[in-house]
Amino acid sequence: MKQPSALATLIDALRALPGVGPKSAQRIAYHLMQHDRPGADKLGKALLNATSNLKHCLRCNTFTEAEICETCLDEQRDTSLLCVVETPADQVMLEQTLTYKGLYFVLMGRLSPLDGIGPKEIHFDRLVKRATDGAVREVVLATNFTNEGEATAHYIAQALKSRGLTVSRLARGVPVGGELEYVDAGTIARAMLDRRSV
Amino acid sequence: MKQPSALATLIDALRALPGVGPKSAQRIAYHLMQHDRPGADKLGKALLNATSNLKHCLRCNTFTEAEICETCLDEQRDTSLLCVVETPADQVMLEQTLTYKGLYFVLMGRLSPLDGIGPKEIHFDRLVKRATDGAVREVVLATNFTNEGEATAHYIAQALKSRGLTVSRLARGVPVGGELEYVDAGTIARAMLDRRSV
Repeated sequence: MKQPSALATLIDALRALPGVGPKSAQRIAYHLMQHDRPGADKLGKALLNATSNLKHCLRCNTFTEAEICETCLDEQRDTSLLCVVETPADQVMLEQTLTYKGLYFVLMGRLSPLDGIGPKEIHFDRLVKRATDGAVREVVLATNFTNEGEATAHYIAQALKSRGLTVSRLARGVPVGGELEYVDAGTIARAMLDRRSV
Repeated sequence: MKQPSALATLIDALRALPGVGPKSAQRIAYHLMQHDRPGADKLGKALLNATSNLKHCLRCNTFTEAEICETCLDEQRDTSLLCVVETPADQVMLEQTLTYKGLYFVLMGRLSPLDGIGPKEIHFDRLVKRATDGAVREVVLATNFTNEGEATAHYIAQALKSRGLTVSRLARGVPVGGELEYVDAGTIARAMLDRRSV
């Protein structure tokens, strides 16, 4: 039995979604066509609108519809601070903490040589140029605390320190609300080594 | 921090996908925009194409781009047999078995009073009209063997038998390759009750 071609094309196209295989794609397609055509229509338009209009900020590399994003244009921000994050999602999380008023650079990834992601893919040259613009004094590394995020932070730190910049890293330690009994040993070891006088 | 509006709209629209919440929607949006713009573009076009062109076959209710689907128009098929399935996915599975050469009626759902799905939502009146067209002699119920599928089969069987049609149900029993030790007791009980002479 042949599926109608509009349906077959949709099922095939849905496989672009991360983690969606042939069975899920088919289930999603039937769901949308049977129960949520307005949603499917809205999603179709949103995808085409986003692919045509979203680009990367020339300064911080985050997603924006303009040449320079709103954050980079915000005159209230401290231009001497530059925070390096892996993704726009991380940037959003940091903004929600209301503890940082500087600017950002979004790598859009992390170093991962096994996946073929090297300095070029994380826009390392642009980061160096951005960090050495004269205004930036301190670079805060806020990549993830995974193996790859740590390696990325280490790589960037080496390069920027050799250019005379102050480089810092988000503090590691016991999470707020954490009970020592249930926190992993590596985190407690780190918290002990980095202990602070009170 | 405000997300660019094309991105915010996309993240919101992605929530139409079944099982996708705000965090997944954000992750999918970033993935598509960063790593697979051609895929996003293709998906957007496929969605709009499907919502404008896919409709339901006037005879069997499956998805089709024409008035009557290819299966219903196929003159090789046995018009005296009508198989009732819940979804086009079930129809595809049955077709793959190559054991059935009759026609289909696709309910596009199952009776589920708690979810507000009654006879009207599964197009019961159209099914009765289709089954009593004079050509159909036997109706094979191939709804799922879940509680709701069984209830749907029972409901349809009662209504069609009272109209003088032969109604059958897919056989229940031990799956091919099944080891008795690992098959659930309900299935073995059913297989015992429905045992066949050899």
